Amino acid sequence: MYELTLCLDNKSGTPLYEQIYTYIKNEIKNGKIECKSRLPSTRSLAEHLQISRSTVDMAYTQLLSEGYIESVPCKGYYVCEISLLHDISIAQYETDGAEEEDGTDNLIDFTPYGVDLEYFPFNIWRKITKNVLNEENKDMFDIGNPMGDIVFRRTICNYLFEARNVHCRPEQILIGAGNHYLLTILCRLFNSEKTIAMESPTYQKAYHIFKTNNCPVVTVNVEKDGIDVKDVISKNADVVYVMPSHHYPLGTVMSIGKRTELIKWANENEERYIIEDDYDSEFRYHGKTIPALKGIQCNANIIYIGTFSKSIAPAIRMSYMVLPEKLLERYKKNMHFYSQTVSRIDQTVVNEFISRGYFERHLNKMRSVYREKHDLIIACLKDMGDMIQISGENAGLHLLLNVNNKMSEEKLIKSAKEQGVKVYGLSDNFIEGANADRQAIILGFAQINKNLITEGINLLKKAWFDAERKDE
Amino acid sequence: MYELTLCLDNKSGTPLYEQIYTYIKNEIKNGKIECKSRLPSTRSLAEHLQISRSTVDMAYTQLLSEGYIESVPCKGYYVCEISLLHDISIAQYETDGAEEEDGTDNLIDFTPYGVDLEYFPFNIWRKITKNVLNEENKDMFDIGNPMGDIVFRRTICNYLFEARNVHCRPEQILIGAGNHYLLTILCRLFNSEKTIAMESPTYQKAYHIFKTNNCPVVTVNVEKDGIDVKDVISKNADVVYVMPSHHYPLGTVMSIGKRTELIKWANENEERYIIEDDYDSEFRYHGKTIPALKGIQCNANIIYIGTFSKSIAPAIRMSYMVLPEKLLERYKKNMHFYSQTVSRIDQTVVNEFISRGYFERHLNKMRSVYREKHDLIIACLKDMGDMIQISGENAGLHLLLNVNNKMSEEKLIKSAKEQGVKVYGLSDNFIEGANADRQAIILGFAQINKNLITEGINLLKKAWFDAERKDE
Repeated sequence: MYELTLCLDNKSGTPLYEQIYTYIKNEIKNGKIECKSRLPSTRSLAEHLQISRSTVDMAYTQLLSEGYIESVPCKGYYVCEISLLHDISIAQYETDGAEEEDGTDNLIDFTPYGVDLEYFPFNIWRKITKNVLNEENKDMFDIGNPMGDIVFRRTICNYLFEARNVHCRPEQILIGAGNHYLLTILCRLFNSEKTIAMESPTYQKAYHIFKTNNCPVVTVNVEKDGIDVKDVISKNADVVYVMPSHHYPLGTVMSIGKRTELIKWANENEERYIIEDDYDSEFRYHGKTIPALKGIQCNANIIYIGTFSKSIAPAIRMSYMVLPEKLLERYKKNMHFYSQTVSRIDQTVVNEFISRGYFERHLNKMRSVYREKHDLIIACLKDMGDMIQISGENAGLHLLLNVNNKMSEEKLIKSAKEQGVKVYGLSDNFIEGANADRQAIILGFAQINKNLITEGINLLKKAWFDAERKDE
Repeated sequence: MYELTLCLDNKSGTPLYEQIYTYIKNEIKNGKIECKSRLPSTRSLAEHLQISRSTVDMAYTQLLSEGYIESVPCKGYYVCEISLLHDISIAQYETDGAEEEDGTDNLIDFTPYGVDLEYFPFNIWRKITKNVLNEENKDMFDIGNPMGDIVFRRTICNYLFEARNVHCRPEQILIGAGNHYLLTILCRLFNSEKTIAMESPTYQKAYHIFKTNNCPVVTVNVEKDGIDVKDVISKNADVVYVMPSHHYPLGTVMSIGKRTELIKWANENEERYIIEDDYDSEFRYHGKTIPALKGIQCNANIIYIGTFSKSIAPAIRMSYMVLPEKLLERYKKNMHFYSQTVSRIDQTVVNEFISRGYFERHLNKMRSVYREKHDLIIACLKDMGDMIQISGENAGLHLLLNVNNKMSEEKLIKSAKEQGVKVYGLSDNFIEGANADRQAIILGFAQINKNLITEGINLLKKAWFDAERKDE
């Protein structure tokens, strides 16, 4: 039997039982107490240390519950096999610096990607999470429905009906960890055999996902009021990827004429599909909301994709896709074994957030916050007069700027940066090999705060129209 | 201007300001107050309702903050455009019953899939979550590193080193929403061009993921101590998928001989890879822990995949993959645009759970819980004497049973079911087209509680060895 020689410190503030527990644990970890060896009985250790037996009992109970020792009836306490115990200590590693920074951290950033988290209902989120993480909800930690919890899918179904006029069954909805994941799933459903038509410019990441999934992509013309459907037909596409409510990056709204034309095209052949990416449709500032394409004819072959990245927060990693019945059948047949990618706890939290009315409030709030920023940025830009044209405004979280000062897009971005302002170029969004003749500046206004909008636009004016700088 | 005719109820318990707020909100939603119409001033409404002006002020402030009305300086309060307001009500839908039930709900279930959530440290999890959801952590709701937060990857890196002897850089680790997602990413990294060797039987879902991603799969022989490396060579495979620590479903541990043979095979050609799925390596009950294959030679072309599904909870949806440097480079070049699939909040919670020592404690606890169940199921099975052979025991969350009563596997499962017990068949795990000559029963013991283990095994004895039943 192992002889314990520890010194207890009555004044340390650490309870005696914990001192005993920590001492024995470390001795086991260090291998100083060998595995399978017997510990002194609680009685003899209490005597040895001149403390009460219940204190030793508490220490042993803790060691038992953590699996360091085991109790053998009528024999005593034995140390478990040491090799089974994991000791997880924290070492320091150097970070891949390159991954983290690009030297633009201090610029006034008109990023089109972020959202405004200033008004995120943090306390409500925490309260809901706390309520959801209730002992009675333990089964939530178990594996759930692979397509997403049906309660949550019902809530989304209702939301889509009320807010986007999309009629579908909850069973048609697939929850997934972000749009990229859902697009990957679509590529598998299409088995990389369908030719996908994309506008250029378009949402580049969708393009890259189709490409890495070996889906053939053709580029089609984009007109003032949306995709050129004749070009879709002439290029023999099977699938069309569009953002009818608010095109990224152009900000165009697809006209009702184009919409019916596109649906007509899809209806002509049952193996044709429209992917409707409705990424920021929640935000429309002046005029009516733009109805979803899927809302026009719900039984058409339209795959509707929505996300909470813009409407709640980017870190939430939660999107949803409405599958037309035929694709749903194919999913259930060929891909049913794919596990759900969103944790059930997170599904439940968002479900509560929506069904208790917080989502509606938050959307209304954010719509007014973004509207103020939108109106402010436009008011500031007015100062530049005829030298700029704004397009893609009144909706979403970014707008487009044509600057008539003979600078190239690259030069516009560069001189902005020299003044401490980060802006983005339209040309990054053209599909490789496609005609990329149009240049413009993208200004996002969601993440930036209002004071910086005014300051940033002033600096852009200086950068682009200050005579001295132009002569450089 | 709209004339408000609402009756306030002093005794309802609802504050007066909230009654006014709710009334006006509903009138706006119903379209009874038209958009752009002006609301009465707070003064005149207060006079009209015979209440204090500050009460009306509070109601208006709420409506303002939720975006129902807007304040026009010097003019008053105006209703916002109604079409922008989303009303999310909850309708009832019928559920796809077929999706939810299979009529086996009341059976004693020896499922190999679940875990025991009885001992899940719920309170600790809730406490960590509460601390993480701190106002100061708001940036956690913003988009993070696409490969996973570097702090979290560092923690996993340390864990892998301490617990599995795997040396890697944190930057080599890719976090993803479950093993299925990570395997899909691997298929893209291989561009479906590499032939993958799998044992048969194997983890079926991995097989299906390779197939739906159009990766060619060849079946190779599996011997008593693991994969037949000679067969891997003869079938010209480029990649091998294995579970060296505890094969699913066979429960085999790959011998050190096979391990070195396999690594030697991989080292012979830099485009060869081993996928090591280390899904339940945390649980080893008797004898030493089985080291990771990756731990033997860390710079070999071994892709290590681990998960928290078994060690924390299935609903967590969090796995990690260590990419060899060359694949990491390829990922950064071709797939860097894929967003992270796990929410940053969840990453932070698990990071705290590990780095504060709770994970270690939980693992030690669960190891002892599962060991008890493991030992109990084996003790119960001993009753069946020579009529059965147990294999794949001493590790993981399931074992394998050969029953020598001349019943087919199908018949064994059926008679178990008739006695109220659900067991699983080995043959479901053979790859289609492969030689599936072996029959056996899979008994999982993680999810089932101890009383039911005893009862269930007794019933199995009755089902399989009761003379009367055999004659049926």
